[in-house]
Amino acid sequence: MDVAAFAYAHNFTKSAPAAAPRFTGLPMYNFIGGHNDPHEIPTEALAEAAAAVIRREGASLALYNLGTGPQGYRGLRDFVADKLARHRGIKTDRDGVLITTGSGQGIDMISALLVEPGETVLLEEYCYQGAINRFRKLGATVLAMAVDEDGIRIDALAAQLAALKAAGTVPKMIYTIPTIQNPTGSILPLDRRHGLLALARQYGIVIFEDECYADLIWSGGAPPSLYALDPSQVVHIGSFSKSLAPALRVGYAVADWSVLSRMIAMKTDGGTGALDQMIIAEYFSQHFDAHAAHLSGVLADKLATMIEACEREFGTSLQLFKPQGGIFMWMKLPDSVDVRTLIAPSAKQDLVFNPGPDWAVDGEAAKSYFRLCFGLASKQEIIDGVALLAKICHAETGIPVHSANVKN
Amino acid sequence: MDVAAFAYAHNFTKSAPAAAPRFTGLPMYNFIGGHNDPHEIPTEALAEAAAAVIRREGASLALYNLGTGPQGYRGLRDFVADKLARHRGIKTDRDGVLITTGSGQGIDMISALLVEPGETVLLEEYCYQGAINRFRKLGATVLAMAVDEDGIRIDALAAQLAALKAAGTVPKMIYTIPTIQNPTGSILPLDRRHGLLALARQYGIVIFEDECYADLIWSGGAPPSLYALDPSQVVHIGSFSKSLAPALRVGYAVADWSVLSRMIAMKTDGGTGALDQMIIAEYFSQHFDAHAAHLSGVLADKLATMIEACEREFGTSLQLFKPQGGIFMWMKLPDSVDVRTLIAPSAKQDLVFNPGPDWAVDGEAAKSYFRLCFGLASKQEIIDGVALLAKICHAETGIPVHSANVKN
Repeated sequence: MDVAAFAYAHNFTKSAPAAAPRFTGLPMYNFIGGHNDPHEIPTEALAEAAAAVIRREGASLALYNLGTGPQGYRGLRDFVADKLARHRGIKTDRDGVLITTGSGQGIDMISALLVEPGETVLLEEYCYQGAINRFRKLGATVLAMAVDEDGIRIDALAAQLAALKAAGTVPKMIYTIPTIQNPTGSILPLDRRHGLLALARQYGIVIFEDECYADLIWSGGAPPSLYALDPSQVVHIGSFSKSLAPALRVGYAVADWSVLSRMIAMKTDGGTGALDQMIIAEYFSQHFDAHAAHLSGVLADKLATMIEACEREFGTSLQLFKPQGGIFMWMKLPDSVDVRTLIAPSAKQDLVFNPGPDWAVDGEAAKSYFRLCFGLASKQEIIDGVALLAKICHAETGIPVHSANVKN
Repeated sequence: MDVAAFAYAHNFTKSAPAAAPRFTGLPMYNFIGGHNDPHEIPTEALAEAAAAVIRREGASLALYNLGTGPQGYRGLRDFVADKLARHRGIKTDRDGVLITTGSGQGIDMISALLVEPGETVLLEEYCYQGAINRFRKLGATVLAMAVDEDGIRIDALAAQLAALKAAGTVPKMIYTIPTIQNPTGSILPLDRRHGLLALARQYGIVIFEDECYADLIWSGGAPPSLYALDPSQVVHIGSFSKSLAPALRVGYAVADWSVLSRMIAMKTDGGTGALDQMIIAEYFSQHFDAHAAHLSGVLADKLATMIEACEREFGTSLQLFKPQGGIFMWMKLPDSVDVRTLIAPSAKQDLVFNPGPDWAVDGEAAKSYFRLCFGLASKQEIIDGVALLAKICHAETGIPVHSANVKN
């Protein structure tokens, strides 16, 4: 209720955020966020899994953490260990897995545990906005690692680390999304993984490996995770937001016990939501491989539609970073275009996208880039939305010169 | 996996906590924590509710926050508004409710939003440990409000506020659990509620009302919540941990929009776990009143067993604060007993309890007090556990002089 007798405004702390606006619904052309395809939620199988696991183990809901300790539901930790062994080359067991309340909680805890204000963290030059923001909020110095179509350029990183050391700085951490990099969609090849680990060992840098998208790969495979290749120096996280559903807030971390045990001590949320955990475990223990393969196929098909639409509408004006998996595509307009000028006109037409500057360590240098997510939108929405974006871009910047929507 | 090649120990931040120990199971006589009775989880009805809501609305899991914005699942907000209207006198609607990831998240956000380091917060002299710790961690000055068997003593509070003001201090916040106070189990009478609100208005102090236990009252009723009596100056939170199950991490907050909108901005967890929310809403929309009444009856019965056991085993050595609802009882041994000396011998015999110093603003002054929770333990465990505790207490302190377990 809005009541004004008490002047709350004079009582908020200095660090209080601005008020959030009232939620007014989602835009029609929604190309942002980690949403998935509503048609691909396996509602019937999830309903059955939910009923089965609650009938069998529901009594344990009476205890915090289901009475099995702060690392999370045992059935889910068993599934995570099995999945990571089969798909990511990781050898662990339920005692080596910590369930987190979304992978965001993992990022919060790992960054706070290992990075002091003023310390240096290296991120891929184009990078997940949530990670950039979290490291900056901690007061870290955030530096960009150069990437190409295969991910981190190891030669450039070697030179960068040597130059930093010569100037007196050794970074504390390398945060990387090696498998379906966000936003470029690349998969780091095996030789680069070994190269990255060798540099980390040489300089004594912790590697923070975020594999949120590694369950959704077109070809079905990727080199082993960095953690699998060197468990001593890598902290690994993953999520069920992309492989199943983002409204579920369940992720996981795998790391040396010295790290995991402190993350457990930092996890003051009373445990991760138990029904989310139990139902994911029950469903995925039986259906993970089939579900991930089917969903990847659906997403690859939507991406094909998006690529086709982008090529049709933007022609050669748009450079596409075709992803090898995941739910988004990174792209670049000519240097003359600042995509930030497209945000307001697009919003006015009910279309939202991620401007490059939000997804890059050096925002200004990414002003001609943007990211379009294709998980939520239908094929028709993708076709119509990309056409609309091209039309707006043409109206604002003259590019693309020959828009399919504009008779020249 | 425990691997030692990388020296993590030298890389943790100054604020890193100590490592958590490996979980080794729950003690046999477990009288701590907000656990509930496993026999009272309505597994069959929850299974049916889960299947029904997932079949009907599961597709929306594909969207963050189910596509309905950051305040939480609409069905649950509707239920909360209805429950608060019927039971706590609160007039609100779904737009006035924010779902939180446990009520602990509510405490974290509200304290950070309103209390700067160095500011003064008043708490009931015996108080929920989690609240005391959170305010201290923020750097607040935490002062005790005197309580009696009905809760906050308004006369004493008036004198305290006047003295503080004379010394140049106006507290920023009063945190209170007016309905089934934790740990004393009291219900603040209506006249005291009005008295408390009048003082808060006079001095311009925010009241933070925590009603985590208000759904579990023996008599079935309590005066309206403080928020109902003055929505302009009270922030209200509640939880489903006690009324349904603590492994679910779902709570809620009701407050002026200026507060709620900033809490929404602070809620960076991507939403509260959707299946936890959906299943609680589906079950409680149909069964809340019957469930709460039944559970309260079961708990009142267990409490009667605990009171009987305490009187049998400790006789007049133990002063009982008989609670009017909830899941715990506060009690006091003679001043000569420091309950902290009982912790280790009890743990050795697989019995845990909450020592008074952990549950009091002035820990030292509460050294003869302790709290026993009765939600989880069976009646036989209560009988045996209280007898064991009396035996340990007698062995360590000579009190109770005539323990039923000790032949004199």
